This record gives sequence, structure tokens and C-alpha cells, in this order.
Amino acid sequence: MSIAKTRSPLPISQVTIDDDFWSPRRRIVREQTIPHQEEQLRAGGQFEALKLAWRPGDEGEPHIFWESDVAKWIEAASYALASGYDAALDEAVDEAIALLAGAQQDDGYLNVYFTVVKPGERFTDLRDAHELYCAGHLIEAGVAHHEATGKTGLLDIVRRYADLIDREFGPGGSCEGGYDGHEEIELALVKLYRATGERRYLDLALRLVDNRGTEPHYFDAERERRGTEGYFGRFFGDRSHRAEWYRRYNQSHAPVREQTEAAGHSVRAMYLYAAMADLAIETGDEGLRAACERLWEDTTGTKLYLTGGLGALPEIEGFGPAFHLPDREGYAETCAAIGLVFWAQRMALLTGEAKYVDVLERALYNGVLSGVSADGTRYFYGNPLAADGTVERSEWFGCACCPPNLARLLASLEHYLYTAEPDGIAVNLYAAGTARFDHGGREVRLTQATAYPWDGRVRLTVDAGRSTDFTLRLRVPDWAGAVALTIDGVAVAAVADHGYLRLRRQWRPGTVIELDLGMAPQRVRADHRVAAALGKVALQKGPIVYCAEEVDNIAPVPALAVRAGARLRVERNEATGLDEIAVEGIRERHVESGLYTAAEPAREPVTIRTVPYFWWANRGKGTMAVWLREAPARR
Amino acid sequence: MSIAKTRSPLPISQVTIDDDFWSPRRRIVREQTIPHQEEQLRAGGQFEALKLAWRPGDEGEPHIFWESDVAKWIEAASYALASGYDAALDEAVDEAIALLAGAQQDDGYLNVYFTVVKPGERFTDLRDAHELYCAGHLIEAGVAHHEATGKTGLLDIVRRYADLIDREFGPGGSCEGGYDGHEEIELALVKLYRATGERRYLDLALRLVDNRGTEPHYFDAERERRGTEGYFGRFFGDRSHRAEWYRRYNQSHAPVREQTEAAGHSVRAMYLYAAMADLAIETGDEGLRAACERLWEDTTGTKLYLTGGLGALPEIEGFGPAFHLPDREGYAETCAAIGLVFWAQRMALLTGEAKYVDVLERALYNGVLSGVSADGTRYFYGNPLAADGTVERSEWFGCACCPPNLARLLASLEHYLYTAEPDGIAVNLYAAGTARFDHGGREVRLTQATAYPWDGRVRLTVDAGRSTDFTLRLRVPDWAGAVALTIDGVAVAAVADHGYLRLRRQWRPGTVIELDLGMAPQRVRADHRVAAALGKVALQKGPIVYCAEEVDNIAPVPALAVRAGARLRVERNEATGLDEIAVEGIRERHVESGLYTAAEPAREPVTIRTVPYFWWANRGKGTMAVWLREAPARR
Repeated sequence: MSIAKTRSPLPISQVTIDDDFWSPRRRIVREQTIPHQEEQLRAGGQFEALKLAWRPGDEGEPHIFWESDVAKWIEAASYALASGYDAALDEAVDEAIALLAGAQQDDGYLNVYFTVVKPGERFTDLRDAHELYCAGHLIEAGVAHHEATGKTGLLDIVRRYADLIDREFGPGGSCEGGYDGHEEIELALVKLYRATGERRYLDLALRLVDNRGTEPHYFDAERERRGTEGYFGRFFGDRSHRAEWYRRYNQSHAPVREQTEAAGHSVRAMYLYAAMADLAIETGDEGLRAACERLWEDTTGTKLYLTGGLGALPEIEGFGPAFHLPDREGYAETCAAIGLVFWAQRMALLTGEAKYVDVLERALYNGVLSGVSADGTRYFYGNPLAADGTVERSEWFGCACCPPNLARLLASLEHYLYTAEPDGIAVNLYAAGTARFDHGGREVRLTQATAYPWDGRVRLTVDAGRSTDFTLRLRVPDWAGAVALTIDGVAVAAVADHGYLRLRRQWRPGTVIELDLGMAPQRVRADHRVAAALGKVALQKGPIVYCAEEVDNIAPVPALAVRAGARLRVERNEATGLDEIAVEGIRERHVESGLYTAAEPAREPVTIRTVPYFWWANRGKGTMAVWLREAPARR
Repeated sequence: MSIAKTRSPLPISQVTIDDDFWSPRRRIVREQTIPHQEEQLRAGGQFEALKLAWRPGDEGEPHIFWESDVAKWIEAASYALASGYDAALDEAVDEAIALLAGAQQDDGYLNVYFTVVKPGERFTDLRDAHELYCAGHLIEAGVAHHEATGKTGLLDIVRRYADLIDREFGPGGSCEGGYDGHEEIELALVKLYRATGERRYLDLALRLVDNRGTEPHYFDAERERRGTEGYFGRFFGDRSHRAEWYRRYNQSHAPVREQTEAAGHSVRAMYLYAAMADLAIETGDEGLRAACERLWEDTTGTKLYLTGGLGALPEIEGFGPAFHLPDREGYAETCAAIGLVFWAQRMALLTGEAKYVDVLERALYNGVLSGVSADGTRYFYGNPLAADGTVERSEWFGCACCPPNLARLLASLEHYLYTAEPDGIAVNLYAAGTARFDHGGREVRLTQATAYPWDGRVRLTVDAGRSTDFTLRLRVPDWAGAVALTIDGVAVAAVADHGYLRLRRQWRPGTVIELDLGMAPQRVRADHRVAAALGKVALQKGPIVYCAEEVDNIAPVPALAVRAGARLRVERNEATGLDEIAVEGIRERHVESGLYTAAEPAREPVTIRTVPYFWWANRGKGTMAVWLREAPARR
């Protein structure tokens, strides 16, 4: 019944990214975002709180989320250190780790809120209090810090904490049968298993996943034992009366293997599904794999924004019904798009299929990147596909989940480019740089040169010192037009299998592969059940989704309509380094005074200019839309 | 500086409505709605509460709104009695009045909540507690009951209450400078002045209107005196921190004469503006008139739904910014459309201009009538211009303002048809029946025969016994096409002046006027700043706005688009007695699996069927839209 674990990402140390698109963005993460976040954590009290000096009545009560903020920052900083040493940053990370060490209790417990604000109440409000969520981020940070620096300080801390959790949530423990309201620790424990080889962390992850949604319902039982409302009972008093709704909110409405529809809070869902895929990879569990595939079809077939965003309902930061994907009023939290990247990567590892990477790429270049400003210091929590002129990024958030999540993803982008496979390597994402991997005891170097995502041509050079036999799989994105492939200048038939061109041969040193992924700009339409896109088109080129912003156009965006059939002109903006798309269209204008009229509107020809969606809202507030109305073709 | 009061509605006793459109609807109000509401008031505890038997700890704590529910029901029932006696109803009304008499305190005070729930706190929470709002509805009921039945019992009760309020809110009174957070009493006091001739009620109304929004701000001062949050502080804790926002919510952000934009809670705004117009009529105050005209231009030029609905924002039941008129997510409370009817009537009385009646008619036939089901027992609070298939009318509401408001308006429709003018009469609305009025000491009968609103032809017969010289003004609606007029078969040039055809002559007995208001169905478009209507058309015929409902169409409504240029075919539905409109269009269908595709959608020709908007949601839930996408004309 079990399948072998066959694929894994190349470690950061074996991948170098030296790319015109990604390198400046990763430099901003390193030079702006991570230091800016460190300042925020110092100013916000997150570091200080770890000294456990807060006492009732003091200002600045520690918040239940704070360890996760610190942990995600450490994780991002660790990855940044891996791709370029910085003594000051290394020192700041060590300082944070020392604070965490000081905050850890003798038995391994590590959570400030339940140490100084609510002592004696640990693990009593799993539904609301994010305790294991924070633990999960600490564990991810420990694993990342170890991978990046080789140091074991934080890894040891989080192992001691994980061991405590294993006891408490194990047979006979105080929380037997429990699990967290906000998933996260499950995927972190799989990482800890991979980093340490300790099978009990994998078993604990599986137990937490399988406990979820079973009856008798753990969250009801803990509520009864506790005798008080949960942490969010204070804010959402009516939630406790809406048990079924709240269960869907945190994916505990059914055992996970029986779940068929993406439901509830989208970030939670992504972290759960990612963990389920991880467990399917590690254990070969076909039931978990089948559940993941069902949930994937539902998510991407009915609930995915064109930008890779997820979660249409701001009020629950979560999924609406199928095809409910409003643009202006939608949500599409940055963290949910990041969570989708995590899940998609694991599905690709599980199955070897490119369709998962297609979605990963869509999210990465659009709904994830839009979360941060061009200068790396301002953030979107929600990423709507249209704006009325009031929307802009913020410097920070009270609930600061998105900024450090973005930083840790971009700083660890190496993990997403290549998959080590039993018989070779798969190239998932195209970006200039080098991958090194062992094959048959020999190091192979694979070098990419490309101007992706602006140009679909990729030149790959294979070099293993001498001829080597391995399989190279090159992803053909779902958006690609005619694909052309040459090897050392000789055209090769390019037929995709599971979304990859599969090339197996004796690779001579210096073999050059030239891949041309047709990257003509195109109009995209949505299923007719997506009301916000009806009668509208979006423009896309390669993986990049475009949007019209008021600042580039003659009128507020809703007044514009793209002419059917008009050519999409790609225009390079040398100042920004972005490809823009211009297209002929019309501007509609009411010709009479008064709100309503039987008169036809005036329609004047205009050029509609669009920029990459991820880049919007960098030049002040204004109307914006991804879905553009379509006007009849010129007669 | 003052203008004479020159126009007034004909009293109910002088108007008979015998009309194929209105009579069945008014019969439903009489036979279904009013009895149903009486049951609700008995079952809900509103009648019982008037016995003042509730004590702390008892079930069924009286609500601050309850007198207004009872009062609006009495008002509706009184009008119903005026147009057709019903002994049981008369008795039920007398019972309610006896209960009110019993609940009235020795000093005239009459409010159950502040008598049994919060004794000693009367008039201390004007901002939130709706005390004068309830008083206003009692006063309107008293005036209506007197007008309809000639009885003075309730009128005497409300006069004693009004006298108390006059003392408390007069110079040296406990509430000097105060006014209610929910306007209503102001227009009621003008009615009481008209019914009694007591000038002090008019003066009190003017004082309440002019106190509003002045500094020092009364609501701040009462908050400070009281030392506690207001009634809604319990529900909307943050409102008190948002002083400026809350002031706009209840129109106290500036003195009313300085207000230029319709703002805040729409029903409150309508009642205030109606009172301002009433006061301008009665006092000739040019400042109030100018303020009313400015607010009218803003309301109807930037914030009016095509259906006559008002209030785009559900969260405040009120106005959004200019041109913010979302369809599916909009609000358009039934009571706000009713309030617009009140205000528009007064503006027409103030100015004699038909443009106000155009808006009144738009609201009446669309956004008001949609508030009640075809059988008169189910209600909409909000009346959105599009629905996703989840919307349906409710039997009743916790805050039951809309159902009795609808009943009182329809039961008093006589008030809106004709205006008595110094030199004759104006016909504002077309409906079969008879008006009787005195001119030069002689009774004139004006009889209308028409199949309005389905047919634009109206036949009017004038009969005063012998030839009489007066001016007849016939409104030409803004939607009318070519207008034709004959008098005794002779064509007469039809040139509108201020929106009315002005006919002055010696009217021989039996003179027949035939008016044909071109009533071809038409496409209507909105200002391009109304995002929900961009690239879309609505269908209208006469005053009736149409909508497409899923039940009549081959697919969910958003998938449909009306063909540009296609003929609008009027089709009589004999079963419902409604004119429907059918038009050729297309249905769009996604042809590939998957949420997004570069493929063009399949477009198949379909017939799109539409019904009057007011009639939607009588056949189960489904998608609905007023604004329909437009597809290119057939080549």
C-alpha cells in the first residue's frame, strides 16, 4: 500500500539564483524587508516579551501570535544567511534564539502568552489560542536555521518543545485526541522528521491530522472542560453558537480523509492540505493522497482567483461557495497564496505532475508578489482583483502574518526551482542561475540563462565533467503556446508528459538545451459562473497576469473596455524593467446630465495600458481592474 | 421673504381609487397585510406591553421601537377604514387606542420602554433611544385616525404628549436644544399643526429641525450628563469613538441649512428632508427650500437606484459616496424608498414641479412595491438590484419598520394622486378613479379611466355640473415618449411646463380629455460612474423597471446578455396581469473544463424574459438582475 518517497526539492545550498527578475527582489527582502521586520519586532514588543518580564497590569500584553512573528522572521533571516552571509543579521538571529532559549520552560514548553498572561492554561484553548500554530512556526524556524547555518541551537530548542507536545498529545497525554484550530504544526513536524530522522515527529503529525474532525469533537470537549469561551469568544461572541460554521472555518467539520471541498479559513486550509500531502509523500498513504487530489480539484476548479489568490470572503478570510470570486469585494490574503505555493509544491513532489507547478507559478508571480510593495516595506493583507481607488498597502498589521511569510518564501525560493528525482532532475520554475546535484556519485551542474518571466526562451547548460546518463524533465507551463526545443542546436520533438518534456540521454559536458516556451500575450476568460468576470477578459503573458491602473489610463478603469480582436502590444518599460501590455479599446461616457438616461453613452477610442498585477498600487491610489470589459470588435 | 402655501394633497375622502393595478394591491393590504400585522403585534407583545405590566426579570422586555410598530399599524388601518368601513378593524383600532390611553402617564408621556424598563431615564438618550421617533409615529397615527374616522380619541392623546414634548424641548425645558437621533417627529408635528391649527406644533418642528447639528453638540452634552453609553452603545461599541461618522449617520454633522450632501442612514435622512420641505411650505423659509433643493439634486443625481431605492450601504442602512450604487451588495431599504415618496411629494407641493413626482413614481412602482410579496404577507427590508439566488422575502423582522410603513403608504395612496392648487387641480399620478374638489364654491368631479401603468393612455372626464373655469395640470412623466392630447376629440398641442400640460378653459360638463403618454419599452443606461451598470442596460416601460429572473430564463441571469439593437417585445401575461418584456440576446458558456481558459466562450442565441422588478422573488429563489449585460448587435 505504500509508495516510495521519490522526489525532494534541492536544498538551498545546491541552488544559486542569479536572475534579473528574482535577484533584485530577493535583495530587497534581504536589505529592506528583513531589517524592517526586525525593527517592527523590536518596536512591537515581540522580542522583549520573550524575557517573560510582563506582569498583569503592565502595558504591552504579549499577544498569542507573537512567537509566530519571531519564528517567521528567523526563518526568513536564516534563508537569507544561506544565500549570503551577513554578520549583523547572524547576530540578531542568535540574539532572538537566545531569547527563545530563555523563554523555554524546564519541561520544554515555549509560549509567552501562556507563561505570563494565562499561566496554568496551556493547551486548554486549542481551537482559538494558536498555541500549536506558534509551535509549528518555531519548529519551521529551527529546521530552517539548521539547514541554513548548520547551527543546532534553535533546532534543539524546538525538539524539546516538540517532545513535550508529543507527550501531551500522545496516548494518555493531557491533550490526547487534540489538534490546533489553526493548522501549521503538522507540516512543521514533517520538516522536523526530515531534519532529524525521528519517526515520532512524523507519527505525531499524522495523529494531529487524523484527529481533526473526529467525534466526539475535541473542541466541544475542551470547551466543556474549560468552562469558558475561547480566546476569540471575546471578539466573535456568536461564533460559539454557530458550531457547524465554526467547524468549517477551521476544517474540523469532518475527518480530513472525508473532506471533499475546500472550506473555511484559507490559510488554515492550505497548511492542513500541505501537511496531508507531506504525509502522503512520507507514508505512501493512498487515502490522504486521494483526499488531497479531491481538495485540489475543488480548490483550483472552483475557488481560485486568476492571480492564484484564495479566499473570497473577507469576513472569514476564507473560501466562499464554488465560483464565488468577487473582484473588488474579494479577499485573497497574501498568506493564502503563499500557503497555496506550499501545498502545490508538495502535490508536485507527491505526483511528479506539472499541473501543480502551474498553479504554484500563478500564485507566486501574481497573488504572492502583489503582497509587497516594490520597495519591500509595505504590504497587502488582501489582494483584490479590482479596486475603487481607496486601496493601498500598509506598513504593518496588528496581525502581522503576511510580511514575514512573504519574506521567508522569497528568501527560500531555491526550494521551488528544481526537484531531485530518482533518475535525474526536474526543472519546475525558470530563473537564471545554477543547480548542483549528485547523480551516480557525480556532481552535475545545470545552468539556466533566461529573461523569464518576460521572455519564454530558456538556455540550459548541462555539465557533469564527463558524459552522464540521467533524465532531465523540463516543465511546459499551461500558458505556453508553441514550444520549441533544441539540443546543441538540433531540433528535438517537444512532447510533454505530465506537463514536462522528458529528456533522457548521455549528457556530454557542455550540452546546451534551448527551450522556447511560446509567450505571446493572451486574453483569458473565466468560467461563466464567475460573475465578476462575465463579459470580461484578463490579459496574461507567460505567468504574469496584468491589470489596468487608473494612473496609466485616461479615465477610471471601470469606464474602459478592451476591443475584441485588437492586438495585444507588449511594450517594455525600461524605467521599471517590466513588460507592459497596451491594447486598443473604448472609453464610455455618459452624455446627458442625470443619473439615468435612455441615450447611448459616448464611446471614444482609447489605448488601454496594463501593468503586471503584482506591481499595482505602487504609484498612489486609483481604480484598478484585472477583469476588463470587452467591447465589440471594430466593424 | 415668505411664500404662500398654495398647494395641498386632496384629502382621502375626496379621492376614490378604482383601478385594475392599485385596487387589488390595496385590497391585499386591507385583507392580508393589516390583519397579518395585527397578529404579529399581538403575538410579538407590542399590544400587551402597553398594559405596563412588564417587570424586570420578566420575559419579553418591551423594545424601544414598539410604539412605532403599533402607531404605523393604526395609521394604515385608519386609512383602510377611510376607504371602506370594517367593524372588526375599527374595533381592533379602538382597542389599541384604549391601550395607548392606558399607557399614557398623567403628564402626557407615552413610551412603554421608559416607563417600565428604564423609568426615570426619559429623554436622556435622544441619540439612540428612538423616543421622539416613536412619538412622531403616534402623532401621525392620531392625525390619520382623526382624518379617516372623525374620532378624536387618539388625536387628543398625542396632543397631550406633544404638549409635554413642547414644554420639555422648549425654552427652559429639560431638553432645550435637543432633537431625536432618528428624525420622524418633525414631519409629524407639521401634520399635527395642519390638523389642529396650533402654531406651536409647527414652531416646535422648526426648532427641532434647526437645533440639529448645532454646536455645542447636543448628543455630546447628553452623553456627558448621562455618563453612560447610549442604547446602541451596547451593540455598536465603537460608534461612540467615531463621533464624526456617527453624526453623519444621524444627519447631525452640520446645521441642516448647511448640509449639501445626502448622508447617513437613509430613512432618517428622508424623514428629515421631508420635514424641511414641509416647513418650507408652511413658513416660506427660503433657506430651508434651498437646502432641500441642494439635497435633492445630490440624492437624485448621485445616490438614487434606478428603482427609486436609496442607501447603498447595508452596514449603516444608508448612503454611500456619490455613484456608489452596487447592485447585488446594495441595500435600498423599503422604508427609504417610502421616505423618498414622502419627501418627493412635499417637494412637488413646495415647487409645483413634476420632476419630483417623476422620482416619487419611480420609487412607488419599483423600490416600494418590491418590498412586499404578491400575496401581501412577506417583506423585503433591503431591495437589491441583483441577486445570487439566496435572497427571499421574510415573514416579519425583529426591527419591523418596513411592513407597516408599506401598509400605511398603500392605504393612503389617495394623498399622492392629485394636488389642489389655487387655480385648479394637478394630476400627479395616473390611476382609474375619481377626484372631487371644490372650485369657486362648486364641486368638480374628475374621473380617470386608464390601464396605467401598462398602457400610457388616460381618459379624463371633467364634470362640475355646469361650465367651470379652472386650470387642470396633467403630469408628463420623464419617461414619456411622444405625447398626444385631445379634448373632446380635438387634438391640442401638448407642451409641458415644469413637467405638466397646463390646460385652462371653461370646462363644459362631460368634457373628455384623452392623453396618450408614449409608453414604448426602452433601454436605460446609468452614468458611467455607476460601476454596477457599466456596459449594461436596464429595461423600462412607463414607470416600471424590469428585471430578469432565473425562473423565466434558460440559464442563471449573469450568463445572459441583451443584444444591442434587438427589439423589446411587450408580452402580456394574462395569469399575472403583468406586462413582461422579452428581447433577443445571448447566453455565454465556458467551453473548456477548468476555471480559466484562453478560449472564447460559446455564445448561443436565447430569448431573455423580464418581469417587473417589483414582482420578483415571488416564485422561489434564483438569480436576478436589473442591469443586464449588452452583447454586440447581430452583424
